[in-house]
Amino acid sequence: MSQVLSRRDVHFLLFEWLRVEELLDAPRYADHDRETLTAVLDLAQSLAQDNFQSANRVADREEPHLRPDGSVALPDEVDAALKALVETGLLAASHPADVGGMQLPFVVDRAAFAWLQAASPAISGYGLLSAAAANLLIAHGSPEQIERYAKPLMAGDTFGTMCLSEPQAGSSLGDIRSYAVPDGQGRYRLFGNKMWISGADHDLAGSITHLVLARVRGAPEGVKGLSLFIVPRDVRLENGETVRNDVAVAGLNHKMGQRGTVNAAFNFGEGAFTPDGAEGAIGYLIGEEGRGLSFMFTMMNEARIGVGTSAAAIGYTGFLHATDYARTRMQGRPASSRDPASAPVAIIEHPDVRRMLLIQKSYVEGALALNLYCARLVDEARCSGDPEKRENLTLLLDLLTPVAKSWPSEFCLQANSLAIQVYGGYGYTRDYPVEQFYRDNRLNAIHEGTNGIQAMDLLGRKVAMRDGRALEIFADRVRQSCARGRELGGDPGEHAEAVEAVLDDLLKLTAFLHSQNDMAGVLANAAPYLEAFGHLAIAWIWLEQIIVCDGKSDDFHEGKRAAARYFRLWELPRTRLAIERLGAMDRTFIETAPEWLSE
Amino acid sequence: MSQVLSRRDVHFLLFEWLRVEELLDAPRYADHDRETLTAVLDLAQSLAQDNFQSANRVADREEPHLRPDGSVALPDEVDAALKALVETGLLAASHPADVGGMQLPFVVDRAAFAWLQAASPAISGYGLLSAAAANLLIAHGSPEQIERYAKPLMAGDTFGTMCLSEPQAGSSLGDIRSYAVPDGQGRYRLFGNKMWISGADHDLAGSITHLVLARVRGAPEGVKGLSLFIVPRDVRLENGETVRNDVAVAGLNHKMGQRGTVNAAFNFGEGAFTPDGAEGAIGYLIGEEGRGLSFMFTMMNEARIGVGTSAAAIGYTGFLHATDYARTRMQGRPASSRDPASAPVAIIEHPDVRRMLLIQKSYVEGALALNLYCARLVDEARCSGDPEKRENLTLLLDLLTPVAKSWPSEFCLQANSLAIQVYGGYGYTRDYPVEQFYRDNRLNAIHEGTNGIQAMDLLGRKVAMRDGRALEIFADRVRQSCARGRELGGDPGEHAEAVEAVLDDLLKLTAFLHSQNDMAGVLANAAPYLEAFGHLAIAWIWLEQIIVCDGKSDDFHEGKRAAARYFRLWELPRTRLAIERLGAMDRTFIETAPEWLSE
Repeated sequence: MSQVLSRRDVHFLLFEWLRVEELLDAPRYADHDRETLTAVLDLAQSLAQDNFQSANRVADREEPHLRPDGSVALPDEVDAALKALVETGLLAASHPADVGGMQLPFVVDRAAFAWLQAASPAISGYGLLSAAAANLLIAHGSPEQIERYAKPLMAGDTFGTMCLSEPQAGSSLGDIRSYAVPDGQGRYRLFGNKMWISGADHDLAGSITHLVLARVRGAPEGVKGLSLFIVPRDVRLENGETVRNDVAVAGLNHKMGQRGTVNAAFNFGEGAFTPDGAEGAIGYLIGEEGRGLSFMFTMMNEARIGVGTSAAAIGYTGFLHATDYARTRMQGRPASSRDPASAPVAIIEHPDVRRMLLIQKSYVEGALALNLYCARLVDEARCSGDPEKRENLTLLLDLLTPVAKSWPSEFCLQANSLAIQVYGGYGYTRDYPVEQFYRDNRLNAIHEGTNGIQAMDLLGRKVAMRDGRALEIFADRVRQSCARGRELGGDPGEHAEAVEAVLDDLLKLTAFLHSQNDMAGVLANAAPYLEAFGHLAIAWIWLEQIIVCDGKSDDFHEGKRAAARYFRLWELPRTRLAIERLGAMDRTFIETAPEWLSE
Repeated sequence: MSQVLSRRDVHFLLFEWLRVEELLDAPRYADHDRETLTAVLDLAQSLAQDNFQSANRVADREEPHLRPDGSVALPDEVDAALKALVETGLLAASHPADVGGMQLPFVVDRAAFAWLQAASPAISGYGLLSAAAANLLIAHGSPEQIERYAKPLMAGDTFGTMCLSEPQAGSSLGDIRSYAVPDGQGRYRLFGNKMWISGADHDLAGSITHLVLARVRGAPEGVKGLSLFIVPRDVRLENGETVRNDVAVAGLNHKMGQRGTVNAAFNFGEGAFTPDGAEGAIGYLIGEEGRGLSFMFTMMNEARIGVGTSAAAIGYTGFLHATDYARTRMQGRPASSRDPASAPVAIIEHPDVRRMLLIQKSYVEGALALNLYCARLVDEARCSGDPEKRENLTLLLDLLTPVAKSWPSEFCLQANSLAIQVYGGYGYTRDYPVEQFYRDNRLNAIHEGTNGIQAMDLLGRKVAMRDGRALEIFADRVRQSCARGRELGGDPGEHAEAVEAVLDDLLKLTAFLHSQNDMAGVLANAAPYLEAFGHLAIAWIWLEQIIVCDGKSDDFHEGKRAAARYFRLWELPRTRLAIERLGAMDRTFIETAPEWLSE
């Protein structure tokens, strides 16, 4: 069995639960059939097992380093893994056929990519960034920009980056200081410093295409003044010559995990190069001026689902490793017979070890399922000809995205911690991969919008937008699942009762909070709201899964029911506590004075 | 202000809450006064700040490595930090004066040592092991063994190790295979393999004194057949010659954190050396044969409090770092005014950041307080002339030890994760120390008995021992605090109500569980029981603290009340969920079949 992901589970999620074959009725996906989808999953699984998994350890041990000439060196294994990825064509898996993509359903693309993310989140990061950059260009770039920049990204001839953050402005993009000046030839010259740039520099492809947020000189302050530019590392001039752009690595960030993804601070236009004989990095505006952030936001849901899937995938591979270990590691004796002369048993026989595994299972399978559910919403929206339906799908996706991003980054990290605990001391050593999973996964609560920002987004914006329309759509879907669960009775019936009760309470709470004339007080408790919402969403996703399992009693389906039962009985009730506190408009956090915390 | 620990808080805990000066009335501590105690804390604080804190980073970056001759090299900074520690005499802080110790109250020793543990858990580990080995020898060794081995340990002329685990027997000590053969000259020859030996080899002192669990040939199987031996790395023979013992490092363990503590696998008697012309490592029996584990157990409470304090201390330094960072890092604007033209504020102004800091505060100050409370019980027992009182104190300590060890290792690790989150991306890099704290602290749930073992110890043994006497003693103390809190009213009054309600429920639950004729079923839920018990204990410790704060309203005392309020309102209610589930004899974990978990 694979230790990367469970093929049986991925099959269950895609074909039995999410019924992806129904998507193939839409013209967009009509060229595919079950066989091509399965072939893509086969391909991703082989690539993950044969190339990414082993390179993952090397990429962690041998961190990227700067060469004397300022370029960045990566281990050969990373290069080889990415070359293998490029050869599969998976970089363009869900992109439209008319620009050279495979035009696969997005949910299948995400499931395939999850194999790579589980096998090496750091190496798959390069692919994720390229695909996102290509997506953005296809959506907002000119036909020439698509031709010149998006297609090479999809073909792996270049890799992409997203240059948003700056040293003084991590999460606060309105404070971006990088600026751009028109050069009179239709191009711009860019100046400024960027921070946290993943994939900033390397030799993995012919060039690198940076997408850079900057303010055109004279543009308004705040996020409204931001524009988005293509800044290629290597610029082809009008005369056909290719010159080095003035984009220089100022220094590498040395991370706790995900070390295989080079991450750097960048200087634009500081004079390391003078491309085409003038100062500043050459950049090409995407769309109109002042639309930069809105373009980024169109990609945000997909990028955040990418992070959520990565968190789920890292948790998932940890769970599979720990389960395999627990089946083969012999130690101790059952509580019922402590005779020292008897042979030790596999540690999976100890209920506390099974407890740790079942918790992991409920977290990682729930989290992966939620993210694939969201990915399917993207497909439904893409395929729907009905504008209202499309809008509803997008609203639901907007609502679920902060949950799909943040919940796995908290709970699948806890799963990784439990995987270490199952291994005991061995898990704490670098001889086993579980400690790397734990370090790698810790990033996911931070990047693509910290979980604090996701919480504000959910409670401050998403549940209230369009008069709560998104929340209503969510509630309708949950109630439909509950109705089906109650019809079935048994486990799904009990699960439905529990989920619906929490849904009702959460809806009441949400209405109450938004009726308060104290948004600062409400938002101070946004984080526990997000966590409670996440627990409800995951409990619902488990209900959905056990409905599909109904009437089947082999090990796979019993396992699903056990994980759902754990989640219903031990996890879902946590939401009660948060709902109580929030309902009391608890002001503990907001009223804590900064000077009380420590001297 | 120090970023290691808060001196104000340590002062509060020792002098205002735990009233350590009252201990000085006992003859054992009569030579000390408030000044000498304060001087010891000053000394520890300077040592932590001047030597340990900087060496901590180096020890993490430059991992111990094997030299070609099989010895282990450590960075010079570790050597320098430990030499400075030896010079202070703190290694013998709480040992009796008649064997060369300072004979300080144990609680002051632990508080002083907590500074070193916060500044460098890995480097302080060498000191902890030596002190523990010396303790064990003083308690169970012969006068000659104390002279020859315990005194050099306290003086820092040798360092100590504990050799318990074996590769096939991590937590299952009954399966130890190492064996010992009497050599006819009053010594033994030892053979076998040991694993996870901290401090296994280094050049930090003249020699290393290993305490080794092994089975004398022909002894019974299981833990009853185990004896404890002194196995010096360098053996002084009868003729005065010192020769190398047959103790060889088989390989180093490369850990995720706490890298400054060398950790190795050992071979005893495999022929690397033939000391005194014969095979086997030369060992000296401590006490009688077959008493090995019971000797180890007399040290277990103190060792586990050492781990609990370390976990609390690592969490604590992370909290202080994060608070300082949040006060100086400018980013974003208050929810009330998002004007991009206004200046950014310090991130501590954002309620969500204060939330993350307040949670850390409640965890780390609660955890440190609980561990110091336990350390004071050791002192009370040492000083009491009344056998019944002494027995009661020891019973209470026995009960609280698994909680004091495990709770901080879970929740102060979460505090370390929150510290990273406060730093954002910076916290994930090795440019800031918080990621190291997080890696270092992950060990504490594993060593000195995994938390799973602590849970079985608490629910399976401690709450039931002597017909529940320990639990009664605990309940009496909690009720006394609650009565005092209710008298005061206000915050302490509300806190007392909440704590007493949970206490009642937990006592009922415990009686119910032990009335079941299904110990395997009960123990399958031992981990959530331990967590609930821990939350109750920490909530009680917070009640104790705010009782002392009553009537005082400066920042320090307001901070204590805010942290207690957070814990009462947001954390303590979690116990309800566990108590419900356990009270329903939930069989989710025990009934999950191993084959359901994954293919």
